[in-house]
Amino acid sequence: MNPGIPAAARGNLLAALPSPAAGEIFQTLFDHPGCRIERIVSHGHASAAGDWYDQDADEWVVLLSGDAVLQFDGGDVARLKAGDWITIPAHCRHRVASTSPDAVWLAVHCCAGG
Amino acid sequence: MNPGIPAAARGNLLAALPSPAAGEIFQTLFDHPGCRIERIVSHGHASAAGDWYDQDADEWVVLLSGDAVLQFDGGDVARLKAGDWITIPAHCRHRVASTSPDAVWLAVHCCAGG
Repeated sequence: MNPGIPAAARGNLLAALPSPAAGEIFQTLFDHPGCRIERIVSHGHASAAGDWYDQDADEWVVLLSGDAVLQFDGGDVARLKAGDWITIPAHCRHRVASTSPDAVWLAVHCCAGG
Repeated sequence: MNPGIPAAARGNLLAALPSPAAGEIFQTLFDHPGCRIERIVSHGHASAAGDWYDQDADEWVVLLSGDAVLQFDGGDVARLKAGDWITIPAHCRHRVASTSPDAVWLAVHCCAGG
């Protein structure tokens, strides 16, 4: 038996990009007990000065297009280009130092097992 | 405190592609209790005739480069180009009907909650 693939369960990562907005635009593509996958369209957005992400679970993120710089608490910097992926452990404080206007991310947020 | 990002936890999805081999090459990029992320380099590989994947957990997959055709038990076909993603529910029987020589996938296998 084939349960079929609902149309909502398909898409293209770089298609139907939302128009530039004041901040980043987050779109959940897949929501599951084990993980949540989202597309993030950055439009040149950066974290506010002194604003850190401090997440309860591990995150795996890849920059799909554009350029971006992640800054980690303590001083480390990751300069990313299209295709670059990085694992950000839970509670590894980080911020988005900069993104290019065409920056699009795919983020996989782990929801189980920390 | 910044625990730092180990070098092993970074990479580029389309860099250091393995040489063509007899079949597909699977590389785990991230292994977590909630999900496992892998890169699949297809090199034109297709499933053997009558050979179906029937997975116990949901899978989210995106074709990063090239072209590919997925076939579902029952007759549905999904023709994918670069950037196209699709959710394949658990026990949705499917096979890889064809891939182009430059086909590279990113697959997120859910490990919790089925």
